Order: sequence, then C-alpha cells, then structure tokens
Amino acid sequence: MAKLGFIGLGIMGIPMAGHLIKAGNEVYLHTRSEISKELLDIGGIACKNACEVGKNADIIFIMVPNTNHVYDVLFGKDGISNGISKGKYIVDMSTISPIDTKEFAKKINDLGCEYLDAPVSGGDVGAKNATLSIMVGANEEAFETVKPYFEIMGQNITLVGKNGDGQIAKLANNIIVALNIEAVSEALVFASKAGANPQKVKDALMGGFATSKVLDIHGQKMIDRTFEPGFKVELHQKDLNLALDNAQKLGVALPNTANTMQLYNSCIADGEGQKDHSSLVKSIEKLSNFEIQK
Amino acid sequence: MAKLGFIGLGIMGIPMAGHLIKAGNEVYLHTRSEISKELLDIGGIACKNACEVGKNADIIFIMVPNTNHVYDVLFGKDGISNGISKGKYIVDMSTISPIDTKEFAKKINDLGCEYLDAPVSGGDVGAKNATLSIMVGANEEAFETVKPYFEIMGQNITLVGKNGDGQIAKLANNIIVALNIEAVSEALVFASKAGANPQKVKDALMGGFATSKVLDIHGQKMIDRTFEPGFKVELHQKDLNLALDNAQKLGVALPNTANTMQLYNSCIADGEGQKDHSSLVKSIEKLSNFEIQK
Repeated sequence: MAKLGFIGLGIMGIPMAGHLIKAGNEVYLHTRSEISKELLDIGGIACKNACEVGKNADIIFIMVPNTNHVYDVLFGKDGISNGISKGKYIVDMSTISPIDTKEFAKKINDLGCEYLDAPVSGGDVGAKNATLSIMVGANEEAFETVKPYFEIMGQNITLVGKNGDGQIAKLANNIIVALNIEAVSEALVFASKAGANPQKVKDALMGGFATSKVLDIHGQKMIDRTFEPGFKVELHQKDLNLALDNAQKLGVALPNTANTMQLYNSCIADGEGQKDHSSLVKSIEKLSNFEIQK
Repeated sequence: MAKLGFIGLGIMGIPMAGHLIKAGNEVYLHTRSEISKELLDIGGIACKNACEVGKNADIIFIMVPNTNHVYDVLFGKDGISNGISKGKYIVDMSTISPIDTKEFAKKINDLGCEYLDAPVSGGDVGAKNATLSIMVGANEEAFETVKPYFEIMGQNITLVGKNGDGQIAKLANNIIVALNIEAVSEALVFASKAGANPQKVKDALMGGFATSKVLDIHGQKMIDRTFEPGFKVELHQKDLNLALDNAQKLGVALPNTANTMQLYNSCIADGEGQKDHSSLVKSIEKLSNFEIQK
C-alpha cells in the first residue's frame, strides 16, 4: 500500500483519485475548493494544502486546469516544494506548456525528486471508466515506478520520451483533433449545401483515406445535431492557445491551427463554449449561412 | 458478354479497362494518344474516336483528367453524344465538377440515356489491384445495371445519391484527406521542433481521437521521408481547386481548404508537384525553417 497524493479534484481528478483509493492506496488529497465527500467516505485523507500532501505522500499526482495552477501547486506559498524531501515522485497529469514543464522538472530534480509529465486524453468518461490514454515524459526508472498507478487510471500508457515530451504529444494530439474536426465540418457543410445526403457521404468515405475517429464520431454528432460534451469547446480552445503560444516561442508556423483557433473564438462568441468541440461545425455553417441538412 | 466502352486510357484507365476485358467483355477503346498495346493484345477493340465507342458499346466508361475533357468526350466534335442511341449508359469515373456533372447528366438523359457519375479513390494501386472505392451518383436502376462492372474494378462501391452526389462525395473525401495531411504536418513539425521524437509521438497518438488513416500512412511517410507517389501533389491541388470553385458557386466558405490550397501551391513552386501529397509537410517545414528530425 503506497502513500500517494492527489492535488486537483475536479471533474477529472475526483474519479482518478477515486480509482487510486479503491485500489487500496493511502491517498492524501487537496483541492482549491472543498474535497468531495465521496472520496473521504472511501478513505481519502484531507490535507489543508499542497505542502502537506507533499510531506505525507511519496508519489504526488497533480490534475489542475493550466500552467499557472501547476506552478502554484509546485512552487507557490504552501506548494509541494516546501514539503517534499528527496526521492519523491511528482506526476503532473494536467495539460500545460511543454516549455514550462521542462523548467518545472529541472527545479523538482534540483530538490532530489523525480518529475513526470503525464497528460491524458479520454475526458471525464475515460477518467470514470479508467480508460484514459496517458502520454508520459520522464526517465525510464521514474516511468516504471509510477506505471502501476497509471494502470489503475488508464489503459493506453506510453513513455513518449524525456520531460516535456508527454505535454508535446498531448498538444500534437489536440492540434490534429481540432484540425480533423474542422476538416469534417468543411466537407459535410460543402456536401450538404451541394445537395448530397451528409450521412450517405460520411458512410461512403469511411474505409477510404478520409477515415478517422473524428469523421466517425464527431462527424456523426454534426449530422445528428447532438452537441452535448464530450470535450468542451472552451477546453479545446485553451489547448490550441497553448500550442500556438509554444509554437511562437519555438519559432514554428501553424497556419491552420491559427485559423481554427479563430473559428473556436467565433464558436464561443456564439455561446457554444460549454458544448462539445464538434460544435465547430456551427462556425463553418455560420460563415456559409447554411445548416447541414439531414 | 456485354458490349462496353472505355474512353481515357491513362495510368488509371489502362488497368481498369484491362480488368473489364479479362472478365470476358467486348470492350471498345479510345484515348487521346495511342492505345496501349497490352489492351489490344488481350482483345480490346480500338476506335478512332469517342463517337465510334458510343455507337458500338452499351455501357461506356470515361476516365479522363478534368471537367473540360469530360465535356469534349461527351459533347465535342466526334463526341459520344453524336454516336449514342437510346437506352445506353454513360459512366463518368473521372473526378470533375459536381455542378457541371448535373448539367451533363441532364443533357445525356435528354438523349434517352442514363448517366452515372462514379469517381474513384484508391489511386493507380487500387486500379491495378481492382480495389478502388467507387462513389456513385445515379438512379437506382442505372446503379444496379452497372454495378457488376464496378465490382470488376473495385471493392467498396456506394450509391451516394442522385447525379452529382458521387462527385460531391469525392470532393468531400479530398477536402478531408488534404486537411488531415495538413493537420499531421503541423503536429509532427511542432512536436519535432519542440524536441520530441516524432515516431514516438505518432505511436502514442494512434488509438486515441487523433487516429486517422492519414496519421498512420502519410504521417509515417513524413517521418521516413519517403515521398514517392501515391497520389501526386498536382492532382490533389487540382481537386482542391475544383472544391473551392464549386464552393464559390454554391456560396460555401471553406477557410482551411483555401489555406491548404496555398500550401500546395507553395509545394509546387518548390518542384514537388510530382511527389506524393504527403510532401505538403515540406511547406510547413519551410515556413518554420526546420525539418522533422527522426
């Protein structure tokens, strides 16, 4: 029975920490607001701040919204760095900047601890069902040490490379997903406006080179007009912003990501921020003054 | 043994007509240049123009480069329309304008004949192996009549809808494929410039929401730097141009297709027109002054 920590108990963190507790681990918990009663009921241990989690736990998982939050949890007043001693493992499962991640890792290493960036994909459904994909940036020893706990929370666990590489893979993933959603949006709006049945077009395309998970799943949502999340427009916008910010710092040009970011901005201007990211189709429809006909 | 015609014997038409001949049909042939000797050797019958093919054959397949060529074959001097009598079937397997296709179909119907638009995907490899995907716009009776011959040339044969809908599906297909190639290009260039191993990033992403045939196949070509076609940049550029031209006429906005068209233009400016369409990655690399590191 390991001593674990979990900081950030939101829509993702609650089920993830829950799986770790139910697997029989001693789990020290902290979050900005109140800790969910269901986690305390099954044996989770409340801590008043991140520092206290760091003192008590040997492997500390973090799942918070963005780079600034991770910085605060690690190095802020009452942060983990004030409580940890040598030999501990800090595992950031949030989706944040790869460039900042490398700096965070270095500072944690300087304290004699290991750092792993381990962002996930699969959303709240994946968190609940313990089917998350986990993309890890870490050294091999640290990865093997934490892997048994990753396996309690997810299914498809990959060591991508050194620190930062997990976050890089996650941003690459979210670039592709956003641009594939945009691609399917353009194709289905075009086909429908041209007079074809979008469902038949989709069916004809699956199997060929246009095949993708996004055509299959998000394309169907666009045809059926079911936009409940899923992954929210606002969160995908945040991740594209992160990709573009890192691209600027790295000197990389991402023309279609930049363009698609503007379409997400338009989506949010129309009040679609809390809807599924397949709502991007509505921005293309608005540009064309036309809605996909079933 | 049916009397068939095949007009347009290029890289696609030769193997397609070859399959029809080998299956035991009487096939009347015409093409702009000289007819391939291999087709005559196995029993193909040479005709001096499209009109003569129209006189002799009951079902006439067309496989030529673009809309103007189809117009000439159908309605030009010595075109099919000068030779056909009522009850024949005209099957255009080229990738051309859906809007013009609808007009061509109407004119052919007015002559008492059926028209089918039946563009294919799968390239020269699919043509050789008789594994083409065929997207058909036609009425049901015409589709059922021609279907046995489609099955000699392809595998995945879909009646998408009425005339024009086959071409619409094909353009929707090529929009998605181009934008997915662009998406994978941006993601892999970003990941590599950020310092991650692009192969490991690709492997980590396959299985999640970023999964696509393009990530799998074209992404691998980008990593391995193998750009032999496959589907050529110049032909994909032609198809995007067709999509944008039809979008303009229909009043549909395709922002990322327009953007990606410019990247193909840049690719061709760099002499990549005869290379595989996954060469698009080189335009992204050029914008970023950086080549993907294996």
